[in-house]
Amino acid sequence: MIQQLGLVALLAVANPASQRGGAQSCQPCHAKETPGIVRVWAESAHARAKIGCAECHGADGPRNHPADGARAAVDAAACRRCHPKPAAQHAASKHGIGFRAGRGCTRNAASAVPSGGECLSCHEPGSAVPREQAECARFLAQTPAMQRQGCTACHAVETRCDTCHGAHRTERALARDPGTCATCHMGPDHAQYEMWKTSRHGVVYGLKGVAEAPDCATCHMPDGTHDVSQGISMDLSGKPYPAKRREQERTRMVEVCARCHTRAFAERQLADGDAVQKESKALVEEAMAIVRDLDHLALLEPAPASRPPHPLSGARLELGPQMLYENLSRPEAIVFRMKKFSYVTAYKGVFHQNPDYAHWYGNAPLKLGLSELRSEAALLRKLRVLEERLEAGTSHEPKAGADATLRRELRELRERRLRGELDDAALERGQREALDRSGR
Amino acid sequence: MIQQLGLVALLAVANPASQRGGAQSCQPCHAKETPGIVRVWAESAHARAKIGCAECHGADGPRNHPADGARAAVDAAACRRCHPKPAAQHAASKHGIGFRAGRGCTRNAASAVPSGGECLSCHEPGSAVPREQAECARFLAQTPAMQRQGCTACHAVETRCDTCHGAHRTERALARDPGTCATCHMGPDHAQYEMWKTSRHGVVYGLKGVAEAPDCATCHMPDGTHDVSQGISMDLSGKPYPAKRREQERTRMVEVCARCHTRAFAERQLADGDAVQKESKALVEEAMAIVRDLDHLALLEPAPASRPPHPLSGARLELGPQMLYENLSRPEAIVFRMKKFSYVTAYKGVFHQNPDYAHWYGNAPLKLGLSELRSEAALLRKLRVLEERLEAGTSHEPKAGADATLRRELRELRERRLRGELDDAALERGQREALDRSGR
Amino acid sequence: MIQQLGLVALLAVANPASQRGGAQSCQPCHAKETPGIVRVWAESAHARAKIGCAECHGADGPRNHPADGARAAVDAAACRRCHPKPAAQHAASKHGIGFRAGRGCTRNAASAVPSGGECLSCHEPGSAVPREQAECARFLAQTPAMQRQGCTACHAVETRCDTCHGAHRTERALARDPGTCATCHMGPDHAQYEMWKTSRHGVVYGLKGVAEAPDCATCHMPDGTHDVSQGISMDLSGKPYPAKRREQERTRMVEVCARCHTRAFAERQLADGDAVQKESKALVEEAMAIVRDLDHLALLEPAPASRPPHPLSGARLELGPQMLYENLSRPEAIVFRMKKFSYVTAYKGVFHQNPDYAHWYGNAPLKLGLSELRSEAALLRKLRVLEERLEAGTSHEPKAGADATLRRELRELRERRLRGELDDAALERGQREALDRSGR
Repeated sequence: MIQQLGLVALLAVANPASQRGGAQSCQPCHAKETPGIVRVWAESAHARAKIGCAECHGADGPRNHPADGARAAVDAAACRRCHPKPAAQHAASKHGIGFRAGRGCTRNAASAVPSGGECLSCHEPGSAVPREQAECARFLAQTPAMQRQGCTACHAVETRCDTCHGAHRTERALARDPGTCATCHMGPDHAQYEMWKTSRHGVVYGLKGVAEAPDCATCHMPDGTHDVSQGISMDLSGKPYPAKRREQERTRMVEVCARCHTRAFAERQLADGDAVQKESKALVEEAMAIVRDLDHLALLEPAPASRPPHPLSGARLELGPQMLYENLSRPEAIVFRMKKFSYVTAYKGVFHQNPDYAHWYGNAPLKLGLSELRSEAALLRKLRVLEERLEAGTSHEPKAGADATLRRELRELRERRLRGELDDAALERGQREALDRSGR
Repeated sequence: MIQQLGLVALLAVANPASQRGGAQSCQPCHAKETPGIVRVWAESAHARAKIGCAECHGADGPRNHPADGARAAVDAAACRRCHPKPAAQHAASKHGIGFRAGRGCTRNAASAVPSGGECLSCHEPGSAVPREQAECARFLAQTPAMQRQGCTACHAVETRCDTCHGAHRTERALARDPGTCATCHMGPDHAQYEMWKTSRHGVVYGLKGVAEAPDCATCHMPDGTHDVSQGISMDLSGKPYPAKRREQERTRMVEVCARCHTRAFAERQLADGDAVQKESKALVEEAMAIVRDLDHLALLEPAPASRPPHPLSGARLELGPQMLYENLSRPEAIVFRMKKFSYVTAYKGVFHQNPDYAHWYGNAPLKLGLSELRSEAALLRKLRVLEERLEAGTSHEPKAGADATLRRELRELRERRLRGELDDAALERGQREALDRSGR
Repeated sequence: MIQQLGLVALLAVANPASQRGGAQSCQPCHAKETPGIVRVWAESAHARAKIGCAECHGADGPRNHPADGARAAVDAAACRRCHPKPAAQHAASKHGIGFRAGRGCTRNAASAVPSGGECLSCHEPGSAVPREQAECARFLAQTPAMQRQGCTACHAVETRCDTCHGAHRTERALARDPGTCATCHMGPDHAQYEMWKTSRHGVVYGLKGVAEAPDCATCHMPDGTHDVSQGISMDLSGKPYPAKRREQERTRMVEVCARCHTRAFAERQLADGDAVQKESKALVEEAMAIVRDLDHLALLEPAPASRPPHPLSGARLELGPQMLYENLSRPEAIVFRMKKFSYVTAYKGVFHQNPDYAHWYGNAPLKLGLSELRSEAALLRKLRVLEERLEAGTSHEPKAGADATLRRELRELRERRLRGELDDAALERGQREALDRSGR
């Protein structure tokens, strides 16, 4: 901090007076036009360090007043001039992932001209492998207004430090306040704020403050780092990192936990999070397999080929990281909710020590969703049978027979294993016997 | 405030001692029976101004003790005697709209005998046009208990000042606290409290209080007005006011924003809210058209005609402002959720600066709902085709053909326009070509 | 409190120094290994009373360090030695119901060997009738990690006092904080915390503290009792207690309310809760009847007999207190949500004075769910008719006729009664006439 303030002071001295003195030339009008802005700036650390309007907004004074106000916005590049270290940490983290610039979206990335270090926004160093598999909503058919208010309002964090710090007060207390994180890290897709708030961590914090219980920054920005990805062992789509990086990140997180807990306890808690993620992901994958099967049987209505084409996958079914939430059939809508809401909530609930989110907002709707999907699939298949019988002019139902029995038996075995009624050997034996019986 | 206290003091002096001294005659019993009530009254501004029990509850002492306690309640008429200005503002606002008295419900309004200014509860001055198109739940089949606890608990605000101010402490801090607004302005139908609370406004308020960030009253009751509708540009059902009133109200709201923000910024933000409302409403209308189509084809089960009749629409489908949430078919239930929950949340989320509500609680479930509805409609139509083929004794599927193709092409064009891939001219050209191809 | 501290001091004196002095022998290592734990203990009432590590964790020092940390956990038995009264109250309450030990689950109870007072965990004194009909999720197919984080994290309250009190600070302020209750008493299954928080009670509490408004403990732990079931008039599954006990508990709760409100007001509010519970339960029962009917017609897909067997009910439909949320058909999934989420929320919303929970999170989704279920059932029946006609090679639709008409007429009568359009006599007359007309 002292180092940064040093840099700031240095820069303030180095700048020509015409720029540093921006506040003086702007104030006569802005004290009248936007008195609130002038007042909070005057109370800020920037004002104390004599960083005025021009240092951030540029020095061309009255000419810098475009009708739409857009040019007055200050992006991370301006902040970086005085705060290079946090800006670099930020850009390297998941917060700098490129959603706003469009680099987070595969399609847009293709048309972007990378220059300098920008490759690293999407790719591992020296690799063509994408660094993150972003779930991208930018292809949705929506107005610029919804894009601004619903997408960019959060994803602006990439290039706008004031997303957290505020524009003119730039106060540490505000940037650190868990509510500031909440504005984006809440809701059905990732309710980290709500999870923390009603966990033991959040309750003690509410009672005694950050000295006695962690807030968001304690664990995710330890020692003030702006690399908020530190200690996270998976990419944005929930795919675990390769073993080595995973282990490294886990160790980092355990170090943070160990400031209050024993390492053994922390490792057990985090391992539970891994297990719940794996278990929950398996349910999503089961659901996706059902939908793929329905698609092969041409049972999705409207079918992918008879809907507006997906911007990336065209007329093909898209259930991967680029899945959208519009123009779906009901089975896909069920998968979307399972994957983007319930699955994420189940494991993040564990990682944030909140049993209610892990279970009632995560696990229960995940399993209810799978039940509904199986039931819908059965209904659609029954309809198809009727159509075929009518087509064939026959009243005999085709035999589903052996296959269904085998599938049921295998599912039963897996569930008995999960409940601990079978060990691995008994599971394997049972699977072999079921396969034998089915004549395979 | 000074003026109001003046009025109060005047009135206290003007009243006969027998009434003013109510507290003296009530206290001997009530200090024992309801000590909490007596204590908080004693600490109130009313007590300091020597406004005792009788001034509000009436002066007939022990006779005023009905078994059911109902007569002890004090309604707005009593408050109005000393506080005429806020009472009048309140009555003229959406808070005085007549839900409790039943005047908000068309059916009940018909049987009501209007006297004096009561016409204005429902009608624009000098007009037979209803002032508001209320979504009315009073026709639901539910017990008086649920009506009291689920409906009137909030809608009592019309005639009961203590809904916000509390009964005996009547303290400004409580009436103004955003939590007081929350009790009604929360939840799936309009989560204004939650939106504000996790927006930048709410976060700064939590940290620094109302001096630095707006609470509900800052924007909706500026300068202490009790006309909470000020600055709102649409009626209770979300229908925009006529242009002139709309512009007037918008200007009022921008004036409030301009205390902290530039006018240009405020106007852009509010215009985004308008755009998101329009875009979201179009999705609800698309959904309603699908349901109307299903109804024409007699594909709603249970059909409107085979359910308990709607109190207003009888055996006909009701999707308008009087739509209920009981005795629906699934397609209607989907529309209800889209309209009353997701649509409202999408645009109110923008007006309250909360990206998560605008997007994840609004836009995403709105589009998922529409997907599910289209899928359900396709299923129901397919079933109908089967029935008809069976009836006709044929195995040939009737041709859906040209119509479906045209609909798909037009939808695609609209979405490409929204994504900005087409301009208006290209959109129109495409529409003309599609219509030509379909032979119309 | 004084009495308890007295006991504590006595015990501290009575214990051999080797045990009491645990802190001395543990501190050299733990001040380095777990400094946070040592610090908060040092600030605790335990430290002031010279209750050290050994008193709770046992005295075998370094040997007491198992690899998995499990043995270091301190359960209620240890606390009970010094705090017998709250421990006994806790064990006798719903908090001591036996979920963790597995006694709350019928299946596990059968295999448990009861000894001493353990019978009372499940049975009324001197009776074979189960004391509570627990909704038990322990049969779900899930990993031990989800069981630990999603189930036991809350149900540990049975045997772990630190669930509320915290492990080493054991501070009354934390145990009493409503947030501590929230960690378990929140979310879709029972949102008591959220209900209270945004009710008038919670809002005044937020503004003025517990001196002016009740928190959880005010009503549910009056005078510090640890019997949190006091004043609750129904068992864990929502089934009302027998009349005598019910009345007794209700009287207790009214006594608590009467500290601030008149008894008459309190009784009316609680009676409204009863009425809303009854009304809401009737809707769940209507839904369950529909699903049972579908099961009889073999219309549930997947059918109970073709899914992994329910641990208690085997291949039979289970809609009772042991209903699970996995491996269901869609109609059952709808019932699960109605019963475990909406119904519970409707009546608990009233008991916690929250109109939004009672209505929008309770009553509305309950009725929407019933609508969806009826619609799904109609669809499944229609499909069945098609199958049968195809099977029979006929195109004549079988006549549903008289039965459906009768059912609709009876439903309409019931709803008109609820709306107050009929009195009891008119309802009965109407029912008789409808039955006559249908020829029964």
